Amino acid sequence: VGLRTPYLLFIGDAPDQLAAKTAAGVAFWRPDVCLGQLRLPGCKADLGLPDITIAQAAKAGVKTVIVGTTNRGGVLGDGWEPLLVQALELGMDLASGLHHRLTDIPVLRDTAVRCGRQIADVRHPTQEFAVGNGIRRPGKRLLTVGTDCSIGKMFTALAIDREITARGGKCDFRATGQTGILIAGDGVSIDAVVSDFVSGAVEWLCPANDPDHWDIIEGQGSLFHASYAGVTLGLIHGSQPDALVVCHEPTRPHMRGLPGYKLPDLKLCIDRNIEAAQLTNLDVRCVGLSINTAGLDEAAARDYLRGTEARLGLPCVDPVRTGVGAIVDNLSV
Amino acid sequence: VGLRTPYLLFIGDAPDQLAAKTAAGVAFWRPDVCLGQLRLPGCKADLGLPDITIAQAAKAGVKTVIVGTTNRGGVLGDGWEPLLVQALELGMDLASGLHHRLTDIPVLRDTAVRCGRQIADVRHPTQEFAVGNGIRRPGKRLLTVGTDCSIGKMFTALAIDREITARGGKCDFRATGQTGILIAGDGVSIDAVVSDFVSGAVEWLCPANDPDHWDIIEGQGSLFHASYAGVTLGLIHGSQPDALVVCHEPTRPHMRGLPGYKLPDLKLCIDRNIEAAQLTNLDVRCVGLSINTAGLDEAAARDYLRGTEARLGLPCVDPVRTGVGAIVDNLSV
Repeated sequence: VGLRTPYLLFIGDAPDQLAAKTAAGVAFWRPDVCLGQLRLPGCKADLGLPDITIAQAAKAGVKTVIVGTTNRGGVLGDGWEPLLVQALELGMDLASGLHHRLTDIPVLRDTAVRCGRQIADVRHPTQEFAVGNGIRRPGKRLLTVGTDCSIGKMFTALAIDREITARGGKCDFRATGQTGILIAGDGVSIDAVVSDFVSGAVEWLCPANDPDHWDIIEGQGSLFHASYAGVTLGLIHGSQPDALVVCHEPTRPHMRGLPGYKLPDLKLCIDRNIEAAQLTNLDVRCVGLSINTAGLDEAAARDYLRGTEARLGLPCVDPVRTGVGAIVDNLSV
Repeated sequence: VGLRTPYLLFIGDAPDQLAAKTAAGVAFWRPDVCLGQLRLPGCKADLGLPDITIAQAAKAGVKTVIVGTTNRGGVLGDGWEPLLVQALELGMDLASGLHHRLTDIPVLRDTAVRCGRQIADVRHPTQEFAVGNGIRRPGKRLLTVGTDCSIGKMFTALAIDREITARGGKCDFRATGQTGILIAGDGVSIDAVVSDFVSGAVEWLCPANDPDHWDIIEGQGSLFHASYAGVTLGLIHGSQPDALVVCHEPTRPHMRGLPGYKLPDLKLCIDRNIEAAQLTNLDVRCVGLSINTAGLDEAAARDYLRGTEARLGLPCVDPVRTGVGAIVDNLSV
């Protein structure tokens, strides 16, 4: 992909904060490159950034306009197209995490060609990948896995990447989903890759590196999710992880989108992920757990983290409440 | 897909029998619908079918010309296009298991449109699939799995389908790869599906059915193959198998395409496949092993089958040497 920064975050008429969650993630993790937000009448979301127009963004040096929400119907809303055309004409690129491709909209595609600008539909990989070869490569890799989807794998990976960087370690965050790609400016939306090439795409994403360099790889899905476990397994095998961090949310009633399925036991989840990862890296170990305790009060959260740590004998953190330092300590970075 | 029969098998100038292996599979399993073969000068393969021309095929009632080999360069060979155009003009459809799409060849695509004919590039799914929902559905399902790729999963599934049919049972073979699709006339090339939708595509492929009906599902890859295990896991979860048959070849030196990887132990392979399948069907059991003993002499093959059967306590057959009756006995069809 290779997105140029800085960004303008376009959130249209997002009906609530959740509808702008992709843009909110970018604003949270990359405030340094987010020069402003563009909201249309009726927008109920707020990223806490200055409201600026397309013309102001161009003048301020924005290089990419991020489409960080979707219209209620799923595609672009009324009046959005002219704004995005204007952005292209003023020399800015477009990037989008939507299911529908901006490049499928003729006026945008034609304008981009005419102006020599890039449109990145980051949910849709455009490269061809090789089949995974399973050959061990130098460099260290950490992969976040989880008991379920949407349980903090991206957030945890970004927090660990930031912590290692703050300690002066060598690392890169490797994005595997659309929000992560917009944050990192690069990556592969792994669940949109043809299934035969998933592990190969991951091998490409986190290639051979210095022996003391860590790739911090954003996980996807869960080995225990009946819809997506295959994606997760290909991601595990391609990552050849040295370290796994298991993400969990203790108050979730059932697997996301699957009312009939309970979340797995944490110990079982650790064991199965280790088993799976050993196929391509016998040295893999679980280095900690990352728990989203937002649904618990302060005391209950502390008890849960301490109790789980004692039970499993592994660092157990909440990236928001406690930070991920205890996990990074366990990496010996 | 929905291929119309009978077929003409086109094998071009296949340099050896292996190059025509897709066509050979169709000829072996569907001799009833293969009216002939079409070979070009230099062809070294022979399917044991009458050699007929495109015109003779049309006159004999052939409905689909199967492109069952590839040119040495990977695409169509010299002089192939006019023959395939002629087939379309004489009212026949085309079907191909090649990586390159016939529909990407303008003259074929245009002729098909003009003549109202179908071109089925069976390696490339054209449907959109839903995400898997993991909801149990009625009907019985058997899935073939294996220690490695290309180890007899399609052959075993077809043999079991045939045996159940011969005993008067209700069953359907469900194809998940290009040769299987050409044999069945329908199916989904599962490794070409976008990874997010693999288990959903399999749910579509073997839907709810009568309680005493068996879907016999062709497996793909292996949970122990570093390149393709994710495809296999999605296939297992979408199948919700009641029964697994583990396929193996005892003389294979390493995992196909991965010289650094040994084949797994059979017991471990059974256990891991059962574990994986239990996510969507707690009642799953392994009903037998299907061993390709072609690399062993008669006595060694017999010893291997008997020894493995005693060690694992499961029916252990070679579909070619012994037939699959012992496995079907264990299904209580």
